[in-house]
Amino acid sequence: MRILFIGDVVGRSGRAIVNQRLPGLISDWKLDLVVLNGENSAGGFGITESIFREFIDNGVDVVTLGNHAWDQREALVFIERAPLLVRPLNYPKGTPGRGAAMIEAKNGARVLVINAMGRIFLDPLDDPFTAIDRELDMCALKRDADAILVDFHAEVTSEKQAMGHFLDGRVSVVVGTHTHVPTSDHQILSGGTAYQTDSGMTGDYDSVIGMVKDEPLSRFMRRIPSAKFEAATGPATLCGLAVETDDASGLATRVAPVRLGARLEEAVPHFWA
Amino acid sequence: MRILFIGDVVGRSGRAIVNQRLPGLISDWKLDLVVLNGENSAGGFGITESIFREFIDNGVDVVTLGNHAWDQREALVFIERAPLLVRPLNYPKGTPGRGAAMIEAKNGARVLVINAMGRIFLDPLDDPFTAIDRELDMCALKRDADAILVDFHAEVTSEKQAMGHFLDGRVSVVVGTHTHVPTSDHQILSGGTAYQTDSGMTGDYDSVIGMVKDEPLSRFMRRIPSAKFEAATGPATLCGLAVETDDASGLATRVAPVRLGARLEEAVPHFWA
Amino acid sequence: MRILFIGDVVGRSGRAIVNQRLPGLISDWKLDLVVLNGENSAGGFGITESIFREFIDNGVDVVTLGNHAWDQREALVFIERAPLLVRPLNYPKGTPGRGAAMIEAKNGARVLVINAMGRIFLDPLDDPFTAIDRELDMCALKRDADAILVDFHAEVTSEKQAMGHFLDGRVSVVVGTHTHVPTSDHQILSGGTAYQTDSGMTGDYDSVIGMVKDEPLSRFMRRIPSAKFEAATGPATLCGLAVETDDASGLATRVAPVRLGARLEEAVPHFWA
Amino acid sequence: MRILFIGDVVGRSGRAIVNQRLPGLISDWKLDLVVLNGENSAGGFGITESIFREFIDNGVDVVTLGNHAWDQREALVFIERAPLLVRPLNYPKGTPGRGAAMIEAKNGARVLVINAMGRIFLDPLDDPFTAIDRELDMCALKRDADAILVDFHAEVTSEKQAMGHFLDGRVSVVVGTHTHVPTSDHQILSGGTAYQTDSGMTGDYDSVIGMVKDEPLSRFMRRIPSAKFEAATGPATLCGLAVETDDASGLATRVAPVRLGARLEEAVPHFWA
Ligand SMILES: [Fe+2]
Ligand SMILES: [Fe+2]
Ligand SMILES: [Fe+2]
Ligand SMILES: [Fe+2]
Ligand SMILES: [Fe+2]
Ligand SMILES: [Fe+2]
Ligand SMILES: [Fe+2]
Ligand SMILES: [Fe+2]
Repeated sequence: MRILFIGDVVGRSGRAIVNQRLPGLISDWKLDLVVLNGENSAGGFGITESIFREFIDNGVDVVTLGNHAWDQREALVFIERAPLLVRPLNYPKGTPGRGAAMIEAKNGARVLVINAMGRIFLDPLDDPFTAIDRELDMCALKRDADAILVDFHAEVTSEKQAMGHFLDGRVSVVVGTHTHVPTSDHQILSGGTAYQTDSGMTGDYDSVIGMVKDEPLSRFMRRIPSAKFEAATGPATLCGLAVETDDASGLATRVAPVRLGARLEEAVPHFWA
Repeated sequence: MRILFIGDVVGRSGRAIVNQRLPGLISDWKLDLVVLNGENSAGGFGITESIFREFIDNGVDVVTLGNHAWDQREALVFIERAPLLVRPLNYPKGTPGRGAAMIEAKNGARVLVINAMGRIFLDPLDDPFTAIDRELDMCALKRDADAILVDFHAEVTSEKQAMGHFLDGRVSVVVGTHTHVPTSDHQILSGGTAYQTDSGMTGDYDSVIGMVKDEPLSRFMRRIPSAKFEAATGPATLCGLAVETDDASGLATRVAPVRLGARLEEAVPHFWA
Repeated sequence: MRILFIGDVVGRSGRAIVNQRLPGLISDWKLDLVVLNGENSAGGFGITESIFREFIDNGVDVVTLGNHAWDQREALVFIERAPLLVRPLNYPKGTPGRGAAMIEAKNGARVLVINAMGRIFLDPLDDPFTAIDRELDMCALKRDADAILVDFHAEVTSEKQAMGHFLDGRVSVVVGTHTHVPTSDHQILSGGTAYQTDSGMTGDYDSVIGMVKDEPLSRFMRRIPSAKFEAATGPATLCGLAVETDDASGLATRVAPVRLGARLEEAVPHFWA
Repeated sequence: MRILFIGDVVGRSGRAIVNQRLPGLISDWKLDLVVLNGENSAGGFGITESIFREFIDNGVDVVTLGNHAWDQREALVFIERAPLLVRPLNYPKGTPGRGAAMIEAKNGARVLVINAMGRIFLDPLDDPFTAIDRELDMCALKRDADAILVDFHAEVTSEKQAMGHFLDGRVSVVVGTHTHVPTSDHQILSGGTAYQTDSGMTGDYDSVIGMVKDEPLSRFMRRIPSAKFEAATGPATLCGLAVETDDASGLATRVAPVRLGARLEEAVPHFWA
């Protein structure tokens, strides 16, 4: 099974490259599943219903979120009628929406997509390790799902790598998001789970994590805000992770980074090209 | 001029690959300058004098540090007689050692190496932006140095990217360290500075940021220490950044990641191979 | 019912004043319940079994803990055989010991003592609000307990005040610990719960939060450790909170701070003197 | 010399009690100097010019600030023409306004008022210890000033106590602000400096640190904002510190907390009553 994960889409520039390139990638690479992190798709802050629908219309199967999930207040409402929009699982009980989605992939396979958030230097949500564990008790790889993808939205590399090892052999993919910079430590862990610490953002890399440089730089130096953060509008790099899983085991057989478009060195999965 | 930066060397496994491969790389790639971050070289925590000397004996020109600089207390002493060992510049006045080293590279060029530390989710040191600015006032690219390399040891990607843009055009290289995961956003910024958010560690990537997995995993789940952290001893990947600079301007003309050894996908600078 | 809570006892100096004064206070003030936070009683870091037993022998009914609970590793073991030693409730499932104790007070009343830990600028434990809520579902004031005391060990004042209001009317006392400085905002909240943001430490106030001044000061200025922290050994002030509850409702009728001994302005509950 | 410091005034309710009571206190207690922290005076967030002027008109000599200094953007502008408005000293060079004010007290004495901000769990400003040290080099007690007051705006008790001891004997008063809860550890340190970890806020104590309870409580439990924070409008307690200094030495001879108005136990300096 062929899975493409697309990292945090930032603003108009990030959306443009997704909408432009994704339909072609789906057919060229014969993708069975596309998951995309959309927490920054509305001008860098959150997601709106129309942006979400546009992603789905362009072939995304599930949209995941993160600490910016609720920056656009409407997400608290429309997430209830959007089963393909998934917010971090470890928000407290009673939070709108769901932290996991069981869907049918393009090839008819049963796929579980989980979104969870780390706690180190982020909001003190419920324990993501326990929360995912509980989810996997209810829905095990092979028994209940042909593939399981976890988008672990976290700040520090140690927490992300710990999650990778924690889930190794029990899910198909653990991919990190949130730092907006792609890492090159993609690998198949010893138990068969594809892993990458961060998929990177899909946005303009001539920026500070997707934002126009001036204000972030000014804040680091002056420690006083002088304007709002604005999503950078230069051409985006689409960043993500390509994973191929074994139909019998649901585990990963191949993993490669994806980087398409401006500035960053291009990377395409040679095994699909 | 050909520059190799090697990211945080972790423990015995990290040292082994450096000492084994570096002499060959220096001659094969005709390296003019080798800078290595050694903050985790002594069992994951700090650096000793004998480890430092071994790096120098194997061809390292300057060793940089970070938040683990003083984990081995002897470093507070021997750094005073080790001008090639550089600790973060923005420690308070009176801190042993120096935050920058002016050296003669293997090709006779004058090179300034600066080490500084970010403040977001790290110790509240002096402002690294101002501190580096002051250093560059005293030692400007071309006027006073043929190349300038900055190892910016920081946690968050935004602070690192902001530093890259802040120094763009004024230094040859800004390379990040500390997260122990290599990023694939290496690029030459618009002003001519080579940049990578993190060079990654040189250590065993079947680990949690270089440490044996069990204790970090246990702490994330149980929130109580049950043992000390130990450096993982599996085969290491040597991670770093290769930069070629223009002799006339001191700015970067080529940049590529380096990943050699176990587990991570190999990367060698094609322009030197 | 007469309740005395004693804040974080720090080291030998703190223990000395407790052991010296507490038996007299119990008889002079006709105390029905004494709860003491012991997280710093062993040289400033954690608690040993012999120190715990000495508190109990001197009239303490329940000892609570906090983020320093496990600094003395033996606590992980002996807490299992010490039902009067209570660690924060919101540690993950599987943590040794218990987060609440149901005991018989000196007057025969049924008392529930809960210890919980805040999460802001502290370890990301489980949600303390939810955890206490669940505990109170199982053991309600008047229905199941004649008095309920909550020691909320937290850093920031906002989280502590929020907890006070959250529990107002459902418990007899919410008293904060951890900052080692007594606050003078003791009051009976509108629902009848006695509240104080922090009871203060029981230790030497000619110090930095109970520790000999030199090393903390040196660390704030130099950002590098140069020695271990040592508990200050000057005469201690016993700090705490005095609460009188109504037998019919279990809610508070009177509240006053207690400060006895060196340096701080003395405070005794006039209604018991 | 008689000094009254008034802690963080929060919103309309806080301003009301100041404007109502301060003129009377100045004459009843024969105050020579009144310093007031105004960082939350505009609806809980920052200060406006008209609010600042009203404080001065009612007898305040100097207004200090903190991390909320710039919440009302106009403060960045009018602070330049308001020498009696002081922002934290350790903001980076180039920040509008000044971090210290040399003024003539009501009795004609020369008084230096310094405002500085801690860095633990707050913004990483410049080192406050070094910054104040430098200020005191230029303006020493007795040599250049008859009294020196430092408002140290910081989160953690350890940093505040360390500052107290650091300045002990060199300034008349070190008073903490920011936590919005008054502490009862007021004392004269061994070197003669009056000290209190936090003066508390001047606002409605039936609140969460001065804000209407609902939203803070909801955020602690749900981790998602649902509304803006609003300053609580119930009757305020005026909280602060009363210090009497020796004219010969400029050091403190008496210190007492001040709490006037609703909810908190009243405290007046007996030596002035
Ligand atoms: Fe994020
Ligand atoms: Fe993001
Ligand atoms: Fe580091
Ligand atoms: Fe490191
Ligand atoms: Fe404590
Ligand atoms: Fe504590
Ligand atoms: Fe503040
Ligand atoms: Fe404040």
